[in-house]
Parts: sequence; structure tokens; C-alpha cells
Amino acid sequence: MSWKIERHSIKEMDLNNEESLFSLGNGYIGVRGNFEESYGRAVPTVRGTYLNAFHDVIDIPYGEKLFAFPDTQQKMLNVIDGQTIHIYLGKEKEHFSIQEGEVVEYGRILHLDKGKTLRSIKWRSPLGKEVEVQFERVVSFVHRELFFIKVSVIPLNFSETITIVSTLDGEVENFVDPGDPRVGAGHAKLLHVNESEVLGESAFLKSKAERSKLEMACLSYHKGLDDKLVDVSKEADEQRIVFTYEYQADQAKPVVFSKWNIYVDDLRHNGDLRQKAVRIKGQLDSIHENQLLEAQEKYLKQYWERSDVEVDGDEALQEGIRFNLYHLLQSAGRDKFSNITAKGLSGEGYEGHYFWDTEIYMIPVFLMTAPDLAKQLLVYRHSILDNARNRALEMGHNQGALFPWRTINGEECSSYFPAGTAQYHISADIAYSYIQYYHATGDEDFLMDYGAEVLMETARLWIDMGHFRKDGTFGIDNVTGPDEYTCIVNNNYYTNAMAKHNLEWAYRVYEKMKTWEDNDVEKLWERLDLSGKEVESFKRAAEGMYLPYNESLQINAQDDSFLNKAVWDFENTPKEHYPLLLHFHPLTLYRYQVCKQADTVLAHFLLEDYSDEETIHHSYDYYERITTHDSSLSSCVFSMMASKLGDMDKAYHYFEETARLDLDNTHGNTKDGLHMANMGGTWMAIVFGFAGLRIKPEGLHLMPKLPEEWNSYAFHLHYYGRPIKVKVSRDGIALDLVEGDSVKLFVNGEEVEVIPGETTKLAF
Amino acid sequence: MSWKIERHSIKEMDLNNEESLFSLGNGYIGVRGNFEESYGRAVPTVRGTYLNAFHDVIDIPYGEKLFAFPDTQQKMLNVIDGQTIHIYLGKEKEHFSIQEGEVVEYGRILHLDKGKTLRSIKWRSPLGKEVEVQFERVVSFVHRELFFIKVSVIPLNFSETITIVSTLDGEVENFVDPGDPRVGAGHAKLLHVNESEVLGESAFLKSKAERSKLEMACLSYHKGLDDKLVDVSKEADEQRIVFTYEYQADQAKPVVFSKWNIYVDDLRHNGDLRQKAVRIKGQLDSIHENQLLEAQEKYLKQYWERSDVEVDGDEALQEGIRFNLYHLLQSAGRDKFSNITAKGLSGEGYEGHYFWDTEIYMIPVFLMTAPDLAKQLLVYRHSILDNARNRALEMGHNQGALFPWRTINGEECSSYFPAGTAQYHISADIAYSYIQYYHATGDEDFLMDYGAEVLMETARLWIDMGHFRKDGTFGIDNVTGPDEYTCIVNNNYYTNAMAKHNLEWAYRVYEKMKTWEDNDVEKLWERLDLSGKEVESFKRAAEGMYLPYNESLQINAQDDSFLNKAVWDFENTPKEHYPLLLHFHPLTLYRYQVCKQADTVLAHFLLEDYSDEETIHHSYDYYERITTHDSSLSSCVFSMMASKLGDMDKAYHYFEETARLDLDNTHGNTKDGLHMANMGGTWMAIVFGFAGLRIKPEGLHLMPKLPEEWNSYAFHLHYYGRPIKVKVSRDGIALDLVEGDSVKLFVNGEEVEVIPGETTKLAF
Repeated sequence: MSWKIERHSIKEMDLNNEESLFSLGNGYIGVRGNFEESYGRAVPTVRGTYLNAFHDVIDIPYGEKLFAFPDTQQKMLNVIDGQTIHIYLGKEKEHFSIQEGEVVEYGRILHLDKGKTLRSIKWRSPLGKEVEVQFERVVSFVHRELFFIKVSVIPLNFSETITIVSTLDGEVENFVDPGDPRVGAGHAKLLHVNESEVLGESAFLKSKAERSKLEMACLSYHKGLDDKLVDVSKEADEQRIVFTYEYQADQAKPVVFSKWNIYVDDLRHNGDLRQKAVRIKGQLDSIHENQLLEAQEKYLKQYWERSDVEVDGDEALQEGIRFNLYHLLQSAGRDKFSNITAKGLSGEGYEGHYFWDTEIYMIPVFLMTAPDLAKQLLVYRHSILDNARNRALEMGHNQGALFPWRTINGEECSSYFPAGTAQYHISADIAYSYIQYYHATGDEDFLMDYGAEVLMETARLWIDMGHFRKDGTFGIDNVTGPDEYTCIVNNNYYTNAMAKHNLEWAYRVYEKMKTWEDNDVEKLWERLDLSGKEVESFKRAAEGMYLPYNESLQINAQDDSFLNKAVWDFENTPKEHYPLLLHFHPLTLYRYQVCKQADTVLAHFLLEDYSDEETIHHSYDYYERITTHDSSLSSCVFSMMASKLGDMDKAYHYFEETARLDLDNTHGNTKDGLHMANMGGTWMAIVFGFAGLRIKPEGLHLMPKLPEEWNSYAFHLHYYGRPIKVKVSRDGIALDLVEGDSVKLFVNGEEVEVIPGETTKLAF
Repeated sequence: MSWKIERHSIKEMDLNNEESLFSLGNGYIGVRGNFEESYGRAVPTVRGTYLNAFHDVIDIPYGEKLFAFPDTQQKMLNVIDGQTIHIYLGKEKEHFSIQEGEVVEYGRILHLDKGKTLRSIKWRSPLGKEVEVQFERVVSFVHRELFFIKVSVIPLNFSETITIVSTLDGEVENFVDPGDPRVGAGHAKLLHVNESEVLGESAFLKSKAERSKLEMACLSYHKGLDDKLVDVSKEADEQRIVFTYEYQADQAKPVVFSKWNIYVDDLRHNGDLRQKAVRIKGQLDSIHENQLLEAQEKYLKQYWERSDVEVDGDEALQEGIRFNLYHLLQSAGRDKFSNITAKGLSGEGYEGHYFWDTEIYMIPVFLMTAPDLAKQLLVYRHSILDNARNRALEMGHNQGALFPWRTINGEECSSYFPAGTAQYHISADIAYSYIQYYHATGDEDFLMDYGAEVLMETARLWIDMGHFRKDGTFGIDNVTGPDEYTCIVNNNYYTNAMAKHNLEWAYRVYEKMKTWEDNDVEKLWERLDLSGKEVESFKRAAEGMYLPYNESLQINAQDDSFLNKAVWDFENTPKEHYPLLLHFHPLTLYRYQVCKQADTVLAHFLLEDYSDEETIHHSYDYYERITTHDSSLSSCVFSMMASKLGDMDKAYHYFEETARLDLDNTHGNTKDGLHMANMGGTWMAIVFGFAGLRIKPEGLHLMPKLPEEWNSYAFHLHYYGRPIKVKVSRDGIALDLVEGDSVKLFVNGEEVEVIPGETTKLAF
């Protein structure tokens, strides 16, 4: 039961949300859970297929455009649709569709352990024909380019002609909603078919994006319908290729066929896209569809063996946790062109852009469950380092790298800079992630090839951005922290703390690498024109970093002015005025002490050593009272920190808010795509929260606690290449090395050795 | 000489600027100084005719649109063109134009004392025909709807046919430049002809704006060309009516004719615009054109008699001062629909919007020279009070009036709110202007009918906007002061000081009006639902207002955080990087101590009693070092304050910067229209600066000083309906009552009575 997400009835108004929930992906292709046969016009839908990072470029409009406002942004495109399959019954050609006739039985299952969806409908046509139709879908984790649909049709009470009309459709566009700043407002149609060919019984369409000039293509063909083809036609100005199959159906005898869609694009497949697609087809032709399904299941088995979280005590939350972990796996880009969009590959919210969400809310999950994916996500950031260098110059800096707040191809896409470019912290967040990766893997090659350069360039940004003040401390002015309800402030605690960490570790890494006595290290410093003297300045700035503290409240102040403002009038704010950003002008929000999300509290999670526990506790209490959690990135942080501070009731309450956010559509916009950061946050709330994980230079630390509501929970960690299974129960904590040599870690501050083949048990 | 602005040669690249300099207007109509016959295509030009406040509405585009961002803005439209007159010589119909043939002599004069321009060209055609052509233009101050052109053509060396083609052209559009945030970026064509008729020998065109649905019309006809009409035709889809006249010219014999354009619009002329225009024509038909010119001259004589500034010692500056005063007169709206646009009616910069410029830089001039015009400008603000009330609600306030930062019809037009809506000070600026008006006129009826309501509603805004802080002071968070290089700050000194004044005078006016024992006063308070208790809260907030002061620098801090920031690196900023806003992202600018314009220093001018002189002096010195004067609203303030502080060299230097800013195009964008606020600032630098005028509750104060460079200067003041001429020379100050009963004022703090028929003289 807990490996399945199921629906057994159709609620039309919920289908749009379900399209996100039942979306499939493999980090490259994403397909929303649309119905092959579509719904009626009245049912809201976003019919979409996406290729991670495949985008066009559009102008950003401004009423008043100022210097260095980005001229353009990227937009992830809805690509050629391979989903569409229509079924017509009998000579009357009754269209199989939930909009007509009667749905007798319905079921849809997302198999988290098998990596597929299965949709079954028993249906009675207006003229009384009964049929059972099943759609099985796979976006292959093994064959990156493949989106596969297996269809089974059983005529239950008739023997007559059944017509299958299967389409490859390039006449697609993006979803737009001018009223919601969180989705695209215009530019629906940017991708145009420029090649349309029938190759034997395969359809081939190639499309080109208007301004990025990127091309993608899809080769689509069927198996199991041999000799049934009656027509191939092109429609919509050759943008659509339609195959019509007909066969004589026998009552109760299933007809089973499959549709294979191969997606290729310019970013990954250099050269002639048609040749590439045809070659991939050649490889796939040797694979039987059962092998395909088996390979998919095997991939997931391996994933879950090293990543699963098991909860004894709450089925619904268990379901939520696995669901979230599964979608993380589906969303993570596997190449240097791609990352994880804010909505994964499940929808068009935030236009397929990558944010700090990846580093702070998702990489920690992969780092501990599938470190290779974490590495790949960091490789992407390194690939856009030159863009970040250019952006720093454009923003008036003399040196350093300023990563874009939202981007696909490395160029800044945020048009509202107070809650965009001003969030300079993203550069430190990325640095933090590289440092955590190094702590958890000890991967020196990666540090050499990727990490060191990013650390040095981001450190340089802070040196240029900040300044030593009269009192000798190092201050950073005019930034926006994570809390977007307070913008453009001086000495945001979060930003300063993260910058301090960035500077400190740039220095430490430099010192560390000196000890390697490796010529390549010297070459790297030369290439970066980096001297020991400059690195000393990193150290001085880190040591001098000003971290605002309020004496009378004994908390870290969110920024220099935050605590002087009036507190938001929560009492007189009706429920329907949340999220506040949709009901108040930014200036109204900025004027008050009100937080959209964890800010200082998040800094205390990421960098707990920069404050004493009392300050952290007071800060938690203070900011909790004024935080709306209007952002889906907030509750998980409060959960983790409540765990740390020993308030397990709150920790559990906030955890509950995260675990089923999309499954229960609690933010009301799951239709636009899943909340990926929150999905990472669910896992983090268990592992960093309940189990108290911290990734530190000396190793992994655990401070396990067990929520009252549960009997036990178990999860996996990866440290220096070794998967470790951790189980926390009323008896204490049990550690098992899944693979590799013995390894040390810290439980409640004490060093513990985990040895192969032996369960290490400790009481709390 | 000093009543004329002259040009005696044509510099093609300067003609676009001259179009602004030689523009004519009467507060209703504005016509740029284009050539009737136009130039060649290669010469940059903005051909424009405007009706004050006549606008269309356009969408404001946003990349990310947040709550209460204005959906639309207004845009002053370029209206039907009545300027165009072409002259063709001989049977070859050689086109008279500076692009062909040879300009033998050229002259253009703006007559400041006659209210007209005169352009004379002696020209030789490619085939050798010589002609002298003169264009005399008047936009009538007496007949609001009339734009008049008198043309004289003298064939110097031939007797042949001359063809006159005169057009009324509705095929017009606005100027756009997507690269400059200070002018319109799109929406060139919004006004469309919907009526096009030939009425006898008159052309009538009516046009309608696309979204505002406002209509305007022009009736155009000629005098002096009787029986010469050979053709009337419509062109450009009936958007243009073309009259062709032909006559047999005799060598050396001038042919003189005139073109009368009558402009009417929906805002001012209710009902059928054609009927209105025809009726106005009927009235004008009884006036000979000489009478017209005489009436214009008489109007200006009266104006100058009570407004002129005379400088003995610098012809160029004298020219600049009069030029500026003249254009102020041309630009000021005379009805409740209109105000003074940032560029007057001379160009399309800032799209015809009204800003705080009116209250702080222009009303003071009118208040002391033509108080009725000042009054009218304040009536306009009262007419948009309901818009301001609505905007306050929209911006999350529970009460009060928030005036739009830029507007035509009362609705907020600013799309970049950090340097727009966030400039809350505009509401206090408007209140300040009402208070100054009351001080200078004692007009209690106006206070009753207009002023009190505005004062109370703006005071209410501050109560809702600010809050009492823990230390008992009243603070105002998240605003932008006048300095747009520092946005969204807490406790901007300027804003707080102006709000204090607003609150204080709302309280005082309430108390004052109580003593009138007038039932209407009670009715007003009832209508406003205003109680004595509420007014007490104004007083408390005013008294408690926090005015930031820095102990160690002994200056008023621009805001809470300003002085903690790093100082801009002026030394390494090359000259071509100014104005900084065109070369740096706002976040870069916001990070440093660098001012676009006077901010705290302006507050010290407007409210000198809120700080002691030492603080004012230190502040001046401090801020002067970090102010770029990238805004044209800055130098005049520094001039006035230098005068106050006794540094006459600086005062004179800054004054020089203002007086000829447009005449010499020192800001490089005079082509987009004249810098009206700076024009007011020139007058203010003399009267409030050199002469030390302050308008206070107890009367006018003067602290006269004489710049070394001058022998003397003289100007006019109006106080309680009495014009007073003030002359400052090496001998001291001389005061003459031009009209009315004796009146008291203060010179260097001492009370002085000015008596009819007697010059009051005082040594310094």
C-alpha cells in the first residue's frame, strides 16, 4: 500500500492537480499525468511534456527599465506531445472519453517502486458498448530519451471494429495566466515544427524555439499493431502526424499495443537530431517492453535500497515521504545543462527556472541518498560560473561571481530585483553546498576541478560587496535575505552568516589544498589570479563579519532595521488574506515585522555554530510568532529547528505540514507543478530534524529523537561512499553499514564506529 | 536684448533641443518649436502638439506583477497637428525647405515680452529663386483654444506662382525611445481620427483616444488667402485635410496670411466638440490678428510687472532667469484637470505626468508672482483627493490619502515603486504647499473649501503609516525620500520632517478653524468623520516624530542606515558614468552613500526650524560631498542653502548651474522637454536663496544677500494680495508696494512696514 499513490474516482476539478501528482520524469523528460484521450473542454488542464533546460528566450517587459535589469528571460517550453491516443468503438466510432458515456470503474496508480503509472477505466459508451482500457506509462530512468505508453483494450460486450488514432503533436503551447505572478503571463507559443516526416511507420517531428534557436525532436512509433495501419496523415500545417489503426476486436479478448516516444534535443544530442533519434530507436528495438519495465523496477529497487525512509506509525505520512522522494528522483537533472526546477518537470510554475531551492532543500537529500546526483547538480552550477562572473561585473562589482536568482542557461531571469537579484545569498548557498559535498564525500578531485573555483569566486564577491565599517566589523548592505516580505536591507543575518561561512571555507580550502603539494593547485591559483594575500582578506572578512544581535530580546536580528518596525497585525488579518503577497503591496509587507518564511531560523539550522543555543532558542520563539509560512520552504525548517530545540510536538506539527503538501494540495497550486523544495524538506525534517543530522568537517553527527506518534523510523545516509542504514526506535538508534569499510560518525556528540555486518546499537 | 531668446544659424543636430526651447504654450495648448515646413528625414525631431492632461491609458507591463502594482498608466498624447504649412515656388513647385537650396539668412526669436516666436528665413532655391519667409506664432494666453500662425512670403527675385499647402494632420503619434527610461518606450499611436470634415474653408478633425475614450478636435482655417483656394483634399484615410492655395506673386511684394487652429477637448468642452469649436471661431472672427497680438503682449506686460526678476551684472543669467519664468507661465494648468507636467507642454519626457516638482519647485514661484495660478494648481490636487484616498486603501492603509507619485488623472502611474509609490513624501509635499499658500495669502475660504480636507487626509495617512516605537518616538518605515539613489529606507529625515509638519499643521488648522465658530466647519469635520480626539493624535505624532541625528558627525542622518554604508568611490568614477542611474543597477547605487539630489538638505530648506543652524551647516557640508546632482532638482537647493549659510561663492556657482540648464542643454536631454522644476528652482535660488525669503505663519521673512558678481537684483513678492517689489543692491534693500494697503514683513528678523507710495530702504 505505501508504495502506491492511488485514485479510484474522477473529480474533474482535481484532475489538473493530479496531472502534477501523476507526472513522470527521469531528470531529462517530464510528462504530466494527462489523459491520453484528453478530457472535455470544461475541465481545467495543463497538457505538458518538458525537457529539462530546453527553453526559449523572451523579452522581459518593464514600465521603467533601469540599468542592468535583464532584457530577457528563459522559459522552459512545452514540447511535442507524444501522449495523445484516441480510441473509437464500433462502426459508429464512439469516442472513448470520460466526458461521454459512463465510467463504470476507474483507477489510477503511481507505482513508486516500479517507476510507472497505471490507469484503468471500465467504460460504457452512450450506445452501450463496454470496454476496459488500461494505460501504463514509463519515463525510463535507464533509457533517458524514452517515454513509453502501453495500452490494453478489452471489449467487454461486443466484437466490432476498434479504431486507434495516435498522434504526435507539435502544435503545442505553454500555459499562461496573466493574473498569477508565479506562472508565465504570456508567450504561449514559441516552439514551431520545422521538420515533419513519416519514416516507415514512425512519425518524426522536429521543432525549433523562436529565439534560443534550440531544437528538439520526437520520434514516435507503435508496437503490437502490425498490419493494422489504415492511414497516416498530417494535420495543422504539418505540425501534427496522425496514425490511424483499425482492427477487428473480439469480445473479452484484450488487444495490447505500445507507443514509444524518443525525445532528443540540441543540448544533449549534437548533430542531426533525426539520425540520433533513429539510432536510439535501433538500440531500443532490441529490448522487449517487459525488459524495459524490469529495468525500470530494478533501477528503483536500487534507489530505494539506499534511500528509502520507513515510518512505523503513520501510513499517510509514510505515503507522503516516499511520494516526495520519488518525485525528487524524477526531477533532478543528470547533465551539466540542467538542474532541478522549482516545480520539477511536473508543471510550468516559475517557468522551469532553477533557484537556491536546489542547494538548500534538495542537494542535502541527494547528498545523503544518491551522492552522484548531488555532484551532477553542482557540476551544473560550475558550468554557469562564467555567467555569474559576468553578472557580478554588470552589477557593478570589480570581481567575483554573482549567481542568478533564477535561471536556466545561467543568465539572470528575475525581473523584480528586490525579491530576485537582491537575494545575493544564493551565491553563498551554492558555496555552502559545495562545502557540504566535500564534508560528506571527501572528494578532493571534485574540489580541485569544480569546488575550489566556485568557492574562491563567490568569496571574492563578498569582499567586493561588503565593507569594513568604522567599528572594524565587516558589513554587507542592500541585500534581500530568504524572507521575501522584507527586501533590500542591511546586514541580513542569514546573508552575513552564509557569506562568513563562504569566506571562511574559501580560506580553509585554499590552506588545505596548499598541503597537497600538487602542481595543478598552483596552476589553478594562477588561472584565478589568486594570491595568499587575497585569501588572507577572505579570512579577515570572515572573522570580522557582523552578525546582528539584539541585546534586549537576546536574538539575532533579521537585519539592521527589522526589529524597529511595527509587528504585523495578525489578529486582524483574515485567513483569506493569506498568502499575504497576493493581497498586499510589497511596500506594505516591507513595513512590518512579518516573515514569509524562515530566514534567521534557517541560518541557525545551516550554521548552528555561529550562535549559542540560547540565542537560537529565543530567535526561534520570536520569529515563529511572526512567520506566515506563505512560502512552501518554511515549515520544514521550523520542524528541523523545533527538533533541535526539543519541542517534538511542534517539530511533528510542522513536519505534517510538509509531508503531504502536494498530495493534499494544501497550497492550492499543485496544478502548476510540485513544490520540489518542500519535498526535499520533508526528508530533511526527518533526517536533519528528528534524527538531528549535521554534516560537519569532522564527520556526520546525529542527535536522534523519536516523535511520540511513531514507533520507529529508518532512513539511509551516505558518507564517504558508504551507505548506512539508520533506524530510530523506542529502544534507541541502530546503525547498519549497507556497503563498504567501517566508518566513524557521531551520535549525540560521541564517536561511534559502524562496522560491516554488525548492527551498532545505542540507547538515547 | 534680455527679452529675446535668439538663434541666428541652423545647427541641424540642435534643432530637436530648440523645439523645446522655442515651444509655445498657455497652460492648455503646447506646441513644440517645429518648422512648419519640417526638416529632412535625417534631422532628429519630435513634432508635437499637446493639450495639458489630454491622455490615453496604456497597460504597464511587468515581468513579475505583484499586488497593487498599477495595471495601467496615463500618457499625454501628441494631438492633431495644425503646424504644417508647405510653400512651393514657381511652376516647378520647388519646396521651400532648409534641406534643399541655400539658407541665406536665418533668425528665430522667442519674444518673452510679447509671447510669440518669430522665424525668418531668406532662402535661395536650387533653381535660384530667392524668397524671404517669416513665421510668427502665438499660443494665446487670452483665448485658451487658439494656436495662431502668421506667415509672410516675399519673392525677392521672381514673379511667379506660389503654392501654399497647409495641412491639418490627424495622422500623428507619440515619440518613443525604448532605451531611455525617462521617455515613453512604446504605444506610439493611440489617437485616431473619427471625424474629418471640411466646413466651408475650414478643416475639422476630431480624434479619439483608444482607451481613455477622450476626444479632442481641431478646427483650422486661414485668413488672407481669399479666392486663392484651388484644392481641398483628404489624405491618409481621411486623417489629414490638405488645403492648397495658389497665387500669382509679384517680386518684392509680401503676401501675408494666417492660420488659425482652435483646439477643444472633452475634458474642458462638454458636448459636441464641433459646435464648440465653431462657436469659438465665431468669437475669434470679430478679432483682428493685430488685436490678438496686442492682447497677448498686454497679458505678458501685466505678468512681468508683477513677476519680473532683474539682474544687474550678468546678461546671460538674466536671459536664463526670464526664459525660465516665461516657460513656467506657459506650462501651468489653468483648470482642475491639469497641473504642470515635469517637462511642461514642451515635450514628451515623463509622458506628461505631474510629480512633486509642482509643489516643491514651482508653486513657490507662482505663489509669490501669480498666486491665482498657484491656487489653481492646488485645486487640481484637491480634485484627485478621492484617487489618493483609494490608493491609500489599495496600499493597505486603513485611512488617509496617498497621492500618486506620477499621474495625470489622479491614478498612480509609477511602475518602479522603489523610486515611485515609495516616495510617500509627495503627500506631505502637497500638504506643505497648501500651508504655504495659506501663510502667503491668508485665504480662509480656500482653506475651508480645499486645504483643510487635504491636510486632514494626508495627516491621517501618516498616522496609519507610522508607529510609536519603544522609545516613545514616532517612526516611519519603508519609504523613499527625494534621493532616488537610496530607496526603501526607515526614517528618512526628509519624509519624517515633512510628515511632522503635515501633522502639526493639520492640528493647528483644526484648532484655528474651531475659533471661526462657523457651522460649515462643523459640517466639514462631520463629513470627514474627524474628531478632536483624532486631531490630538496628529499633535502627538508630530511632537513625537523621530528625526534621525548622528552624534559623531553632528548631522541629520538621511535615514536610519545611510551613514553606515560605504561612501561611493567618486575618485574612480569617470565623468562619462554620470548620471549614475544610466550606468549602474539600482542595487549598486543603494549600497553606497551617494545622493542623486538634495534630500536632507532640502528638508533643511523647507523646514529650517527643525534643526539648529550648526546641524544644518554640518549636514550641508557632509551631503554636498556625496551628491552628484544627477537630478535637475538638486543644484537650486544647494544654491539656496549655500546662501543661507553665507557661502555666496557656492550659492552663485550652483545658481549658474540652474539658470541656463535648458538654454545650454547641460543635461543633454532638453529635446525631451524643458526641466520645469529646475526653472522654478532658478527663481527660488534668487528669491529664497540670495534674498533669503521664507514664508512663515507670521509673515514673509527676508535675509537679503548680494552675490559679488552682481550690482543689484530685483524681484516681486505677493503677500496677502499685495505685490511688493524688492530690490537688493550694494546700498541695501529697497521695498516698494506695487498695489494695495501697507503691509508688514520681516527683514533680517526685524519687522518692517511697507507703505503705499514710499520706498522702504534698509541697509544690510
